[in-house]
Amino acid sequence: MSALPTRRPFDPSDEVFRVHEGGKLAVHATSELRDAADLSLLYTPGVAEVSLAIAADPGLARAYTSRRNTVAVVSDGTAVLGLGDIGPLAAMPVMEGKAVLFKHFAGVDAVPVCMETGSIEQIVDAVARIAPTYGGINLEDISAPRCFEIERRLQERLDVPVFHDDQHGTAIVALAALRNAAVVVEKELTGLRVVVAGAGAAGVAVSRILLAAGVTDVVVTDSQGVLGPDREGLAPHKAELREVTNPRGVTGALGEALSGADVFIGVSGGTVAERDLIRMAPRAVILALANPDPEVHPVVAARFAEVVATGRSDFPNQINNVLAFPGIFRGALDAGARRITEAMKLEAAAAIAALVEHPTADRIVPSVFDERVAPAVAAAVAALVPASPAGVVRPGPYAVR
Amino acid sequence: MSALPTRRPFDPSDEVFRVHEGGKLAVHATSELRDAADLSLLYTPGVAEVSLAIAADPGLARAYTSRRNTVAVVSDGTAVLGLGDIGPLAAMPVMEGKAVLFKHFAGVDAVPVCMETGSIEQIVDAVARIAPTYGGINLEDISAPRCFEIERRLQERLDVPVFHDDQHGTAIVALAALRNAAVVVEKELTGLRVVVAGAGAAGVAVSRILLAAGVTDVVVTDSQGVLGPDREGLAPHKAELREVTNPRGVTGALGEALSGADVFIGVSGGTVAERDLIRMAPRAVILALANPDPEVHPVVAARFAEVVATGRSDFPNQINNVLAFPGIFRGALDAGARRITEAMKLEAAAAIAALVEHPTADRIVPSVFDERVAPAVAAAVAALVPASPAGVVRPGPYAVR
Repeated sequence: MSALPTRRPFDPSDEVFRVHEGGKLAVHATSELRDAADLSLLYTPGVAEVSLAIAADPGLARAYTSRRNTVAVVSDGTAVLGLGDIGPLAAMPVMEGKAVLFKHFAGVDAVPVCMETGSIEQIVDAVARIAPTYGGINLEDISAPRCFEIERRLQERLDVPVFHDDQHGTAIVALAALRNAAVVVEKELTGLRVVVAGAGAAGVAVSRILLAAGVTDVVVTDSQGVLGPDREGLAPHKAELREVTNPRGVTGALGEALSGADVFIGVSGGTVAERDLIRMAPRAVILALANPDPEVHPVVAARFAEVVATGRSDFPNQINNVLAFPGIFRGALDAGARRITEAMKLEAAAAIAALVEHPTADRIVPSVFDERVAPAVAAAVAALVPASPAGVVRPGPYAVR
Repeated sequence: MSALPTRRPFDPSDEVFRVHEGGKLAVHATSELRDAADLSLLYTPGVAEVSLAIAADPGLARAYTSRRNTVAVVSDGTAVLGLGDIGPLAAMPVMEGKAVLFKHFAGVDAVPVCMETGSIEQIVDAVARIAPTYGGINLEDISAPRCFEIERRLQERLDVPVFHDDQHGTAIVALAALRNAAVVVEKELTGLRVVVAGAGAAGVAVSRILLAAGVTDVVVTDSQGVLGPDREGLAPHKAELREVTNPRGVTGALGEALSGADVFIGVSGGTVAERDLIRMAPRAVILALANPDPEVHPVVAARFAEVVATGRSDFPNQINNVLAFPGIFRGALDAGARRITEAMKLEAAAAIAALVEHPTADRIVPSVFDERVAPAVAAAVAALVPASPAGVVRPGPYAVR
């Protein structure tokens, strides 16, 4: 494991530790167990009838097991928040928190699965083996570039959605924000010059969703500078990304990329200097998404851009994955989707953006507590599932129990 | 998969299917998420403090994650109830039911983990990899003889209890029943001649716990007859069992073994003929534990024995694992046990038996709904954990939520 940042000494009387006492999740039965008659229905001998019916027709598992509404939040603890490789035990509070959000915002029963890390093969095998338990797999905080192949291989093997939230959740919400930011600055989305600072899980996914949405001029940077034609020895995922980005063949440092750029999207965890931001085009947009510390403070960013968004809840325009993942899985589970397609992600972003009727510089995304968000995202996803029965999506707000 | 028994046609209006609609388990948060302040404690940025504290001191995971109270109910679906190899999806209702019992009887948050089957190595690797998520592993309905090595290897690798309920749950409750049955028939437990019909998971565990409890004359049979000195080509687990049982060198069929026997314990799923039962000693005891159909109907058994017990809830003396496993894990979780020892199993059996103050032929075990059972078993287990803090066990009755 990498060296740990330390913030303040552990203090069990601190409020954050008090709300974590005993963990944040519990399980409950959905029907009462009062007497021997109940016992014989919920367990033996009655349960055998249900098991036999599912054995004869596996499709019945959807109707008669918790799989219908359950998502595994899977992590090996190698890239937890901005904390790095802190291991599966230390990842537990984050995955439990994620499960709390799944339930609160979309009524999805999510359970943490925190595993010892290992080779890509070992991670994929373990997740695929336990997959019959779940209606979907949310991958979380798995280090890049392993996360790309782990997600791809799992989706190939499984017939339920596999969704790496650090990639696609971030990408969906960033696109939603950019759609409305473009309206505010009166520029066409597809004509924007965009710089994505960061070529990890989020950077790759943000770049790819922008291309899928029709943005043609995306330039990506990593800690060594622009992913340009002069870069040698790039990791495969960065080489692939360079193939489809940087149409003007930009080279150099982040400052070169920002020269004349309309949009800066930070997903790096690093910082961006004022001398670089000043090179951006008029009416610029800055999405500084590193958490908890944005690449540039929103007050500073506002000197260089007309629209500024960060992950912080104490400033306008909070870009938070929770706008996407609960509704994504709600829609997928309800419609019986086998995968989350590129089209679903684009429609989800459009649905989130559309909830802001009149975008302004201080309001390009809905509030994370806006109860319309998850149902709108769920409906957008479900509408793209081929065999989806009409009206299948559970309408929000969702019961927390 | 083996051919499936069919009982009656699938009828979704049947009560047992109605209680299974949507599954029997759900997840809930243990504290409220009302606003941005709650969000920043339950999730980012606050959760990072908790993750960092655990990374620095993994022991804190016990205080601040759901691991403290969570058990995985793991099955590969290869030996579900008496239904055989019906696969992980069809096993789900059984594992969910088990989780309902864990919560109801002992306040344990149990979650199903139904996995694709594979080699012993593959099953062990998958369970060991996800083990950081859980405070204990309850193995369930995994076929013999694989179950023995899977349990042994997992317990060697993990520092949390691994407990194969089909073995040890059955063994503990059978021993509890036999202790009180011996009182009723006025015979010494250790002097009993016992025949165990069945050499699978339950048969092996029942035989071994009886030996551990001091019973010296245990004779085991399988579908080919007595595990005696004449048997050739025995599977390793049966050969090992023969080494420690059958001190009189009995050979032949079940009838030979029953000649003069004080106790018949059926864990075979087969049947036993009246012409064999009639050879038992006076004041005999019959525990016919096959589920849902005992090896001999209790009314028939009563012609040959003074004390009769089965798994059926509609006759006296219901022998049900639920008397053991909830309390076993309650005690282990509360005391921080790293394994369930032989001594804990013996003490658990004694604790269950002791709750029947005046055993009679119709009452050798407590009711499965007796709220004293799980706390008594938990206390018995916790008392044997070396570093167990005094008074650590959560007193019952347990909250279901």
